[in-house]
Amino acid sequence: MKTITNNNYPMEIAIKEAKKAFLKNEIPVGAVITDEKGNLIAKAFNQVETKKDPTAHAEIQAIKKATLKTKNKYLKNCNIYVTLEPCSMCASAIQNARIKRLYFGCYDEQRGAVTNGVKIFNQQYCNHKPEIYDGIRESDCNSLLKKFFKKLRT
Amino acid sequence: MKTITNNNYPMEIAIKEAKKAFLKNEIPVGAVITDEKGNLIAKAFNQVETKKDPTAHAEIQAIKKATLKTKNKYLKNCNIYVTLEPCSMCASAIQNARIKRLYFGCYDEQRGAVTNGVKIFNQQYCNHKPEIYDGIRESDCNSLLKKFFKKLRT
Repeated sequence: MKTITNNNYPMEIAIKEAKKAFLKNEIPVGAVITDEKGNLIAKAFNQVETKKDPTAHAEIQAIKKATLKTKNKYLKNCNIYVTLEPCSMCASAIQNARIKRLYFGCYDEQRGAVTNGVKIFNQQYCNHKPEIYDGIRESDCNSLLKKFFKKLRT
Repeated sequence: MKTITNNNYPMEIAIKEAKKAFLKNEIPVGAVITDEKGNLIAKAFNQVETKKDPTAHAEIQAIKKATLKTKNKYLKNCNIYVTLEPCSMCASAIQNARIKRLYFGCYDEQRGAVTNGVKIFNQQYCNHKPEIYDGIRESDCNSLLKKFFKKLRT
């Protein structure tokens, strides 16, 4: 396992995952999960189109991989790094997995559900709220998405 | 494929799925997806403990199976039958899959997100709202959950 010493590095890996999605004509979103020591335990990218699966967002797949690896349904001391603000499905999955810290890159005004939209973790019904760090490598995460949607329109 | 002519029958199958979960010491929740003609295309039960996967709720698994079968990321003309009110993760997945109708059995005051809690489909940010039919075979769905939690406490 690779040890990660700062928060910029796992987001760099998440961006590399997002680039893999881009090359497969998927909305470029990547996610990385690290354990309490900063070891990388899972990485994934959005594969909704490839898998024809509306639940195959980067975060859901990273959580599945991480719990399979740790053999624990909870990722209590783990951190998740996502290039884009999670939607309500993924924010709820992060809640269900009891992930300790959420770092995300750019904001999603349309489908985001952390600082935008339904704000899952601010709801009174929320039974677990991770520490949230937003805007990590925002510009890099965002430019990849912009490039993707520009390509889509041409 | 088995043709289903009324809404009681698919919920009966969902209850059978929930019973499978019960026998595996999982919270007994089952889900069934039918196509526009009422053909059963997927069924699943909660497997969070067995798979050690916090996303392995009945609905998520049924959606994955149905999209794999139909080779389409959307289940636009499909119906989902769930024994328990979906949580915010599953309600969002139902939204992402564009499922046409949601039928559910009993209510979940703690984690439900359809008629309880965050009410995902009533949010202004919701981009797809299925028709919702609640309280289908409520008593049968609920008694299975009550039996499970009673067993857990003894």
